[in-house]
Amino acid sequence: MSELTSLMTPACIIDMGKFQRNISCMQAVAKRDELVLRPHVKTLKSLAAAERYAPSNGPITVSTLAEAEYFAAAGYHDILYGVGLVPNKYARVQALSERAEKFTVVLDSLAAVNALVSFADSLEHPLQVMLEIDVDDHRAGLLPMSDELLECAKALQATPKLHFRGIMTHAGGSYDCFSQQARDAMAEQECALIAKASARLAANQIHCELVSAGSTPTALANTHHKGINELRAGVYATFDCVMAGLGVCDTDDIAMSVLTSVIGHQTDKNWVIVDAGWMALSRDQGTATHAKNCGYGLVCDPQGRLLEGWYVSSTNQEHGIISHIDGKKPDDAIFAYGNMLRILPIHACATAAQFSAYQVIDEDGKVTETWSRITGW
Amino acid sequence: MSELTSLMTPACIIDMGKFQRNISCMQAVAKRDELVLRPHVKTLKSLAAAERYAPSNGPITVSTLAEAEYFAAAGYHDILYGVGLVPNKYARVQALSERAEKFTVVLDSLAAVNALVSFADSLEHPLQVMLEIDVDDHRAGLLPMSDELLECAKALQATPKLHFRGIMTHAGGSYDCFSQQARDAMAEQECALIAKASARLAANQIHCELVSAGSTPTALANTHHKGINELRAGVYATFDCVMAGLGVCDTDDIAMSVLTSVIGHQTDKNWVIVDAGWMALSRDQGTATHAKNCGYGLVCDPQGRLLEGWYVSSTNQEHGIISHIDGKKPDDAIFAYGNMLRILPIHACATAAQFSAYQVIDEDGKVTETWSRITGW
Repeated sequence: MSELTSLMTPACIIDMGKFQRNISCMQAVAKRDELVLRPHVKTLKSLAAAERYAPSNGPITVSTLAEAEYFAAAGYHDILYGVGLVPNKYARVQALSERAEKFTVVLDSLAAVNALVSFADSLEHPLQVMLEIDVDDHRAGLLPMSDELLECAKALQATPKLHFRGIMTHAGGSYDCFSQQARDAMAEQECALIAKASARLAANQIHCELVSAGSTPTALANTHHKGINELRAGVYATFDCVMAGLGVCDTDDIAMSVLTSVIGHQTDKNWVIVDAGWMALSRDQGTATHAKNCGYGLVCDPQGRLLEGWYVSSTNQEHGIISHIDGKKPDDAIFAYGNMLRILPIHACATAAQFSAYQVIDEDGKVTETWSRITGW
Repeated sequence: MSELTSLMTPACIIDMGKFQRNISCMQAVAKRDELVLRPHVKTLKSLAAAERYAPSNGPITVSTLAEAEYFAAAGYHDILYGVGLVPNKYARVQALSERAEKFTVVLDSLAAVNALVSFADSLEHPLQVMLEIDVDDHRAGLLPMSDELLECAKALQATPKLHFRGIMTHAGGSYDCFSQQARDAMAEQECALIAKASARLAANQIHCELVSAGSTPTALANTHHKGINELRAGVYATFDCVMAGLGVCDTDDIAMSVLTSVIGHQTDKNWVIVDAGWMALSRDQGTATHAKNCGYGLVCDPQGRLLEGWYVSSTNQEHGIISHIDGKKPDDAIFAYGNMLRILPIHACATAAQFSAYQVIDEDGKVTETWSRITGW
């Protein structure tokens, strides 16, 4: 165990107490609604972190084949790769299917299905496949009432080396829902539309073992998630300023922060300059469209207490500029040269990706563990 | 040598022909103006890349101590660490000063100078120190006419284990100069103000071995950079959409791109979905304030030819949405499922940071080399 202030800056900090509370909260939702929880491990990409919220005998979602390989090597066997598959990844997918029994890929068009069907003959083991459904006009997916959905499912079911496992969706549109009511409605829509797709498939003698939906805002909405049997979410374990801005969590629930040092000042502008630029914080400005623009992150003292009104207003590669929302003069005791501060991330997935490891602190602010993570594809 | 299309997507591509031309152009400016060129290696952080524009016997600028250590281990000895130093980095700085003869740190306040002076007794070898000057109200630095500048330089000069090497500045304000005239004026201002600081120091019997200035836009401005003896710049080797948007280069000069695959479509919205999201492209939206907003990047065919009007309009972690600026329908021949495209980065430093290696292609689009890079601090 060491003191937080003994770390080199910038460093990425996980507050274990908050992290555990956030995890428990999502687990309680899944239990209440009798759903399988399939956490998305893309935020932290860390085995040590995943141990806490996605035990190795349980299902996970990944965003890259590199993640799939890293988690499969550690014994995870039910891994959903949630990004539409293309032929240049087939060889790695084949190897994964031999390593992790329920490694599952996602497709969302007849073109993609036909390509995989053509490849299927060369598979040793059957490959698990799901179809992605579009429930919110937000990104990828087949429309629930489309003919193409039925054609895709039939083609998959007719292919011996492919196993049609079911359907999945991600209501990313929930990130634009600023009221509880809007998020509740989006969660209802997400579940209702994927349930409709499932019912259409059932009416065509196609069974969905999995009907999987989720995003952190819809998973935590006031609804019982009727019509699905699996819940997916990722950023809830740490939360971030985007989630706090939506009202999905409080700022005090955010379990990730970037430790930084004051490297200088521009006193005439009331600027504090720190050694966390966009390389540490990421370029994400996801709260720019919110009522409260947090810039590149909200500023806390080294104990993690929010310094009201102070935020990272601008960044360069290795420089962050901290200023007050009302232009206040920085207090010398807090912002003196060499002092440390902690910045709450705008988007935890983007900030975490800038680091190769996390420093885990306990309730007393002592560093108890270092968790490594992976990057790349 | 292999075909570009044999790569797994997403991948970061360097076009060697363009890269070499960009490097030659900057070298010609330095030669014309009789300046030492000290390239900033923070964009690519790669020894293999630096070999081309910053030979190992020459001076370089770095943005992190990790870069300094990586380049020092490869024999670089004149390394300027361009970010204000704080005490939690002293131990690593000390080790670097023993390894690289002219490892140089930057300070910009009396608080920072006093802290280093207190530490200096424990140094084995004298440490090279420069002072940063603020010439454009943009970020860090001492004002050229300030008393604090003289006090800092005097304190450094009076400390046996510290060697005051000179002054440096970075006119980052040039990134907001949208006309040639504005960039030329900024370059003149940058040189004139740091020259004034140098003259003030000289009048106080303090000699500046180095008077160092630069940013890619001011380095390439129509001026002879009078008053400085060293030119620093970094992103010129690859350029990016921000530089093209300013008019510092043409889009066709951009030597970096992200190879991506079409993973799907939303035909009713004229969207093409690719496997390069913000994890590959970065969250940088540096052209959002430009006349032409390039979103998360401009789209080229696999040969690197710009597809006029097509850009990455939106990103999630591993999904990019490509659309046309006028809402045009995507041409099947170009945007079919599984096809590859190349995305020109908004900000090369941010995009490069998302990858652990670059694939280098020759004029025929063949992959000839892979250059690794480092990350972290």
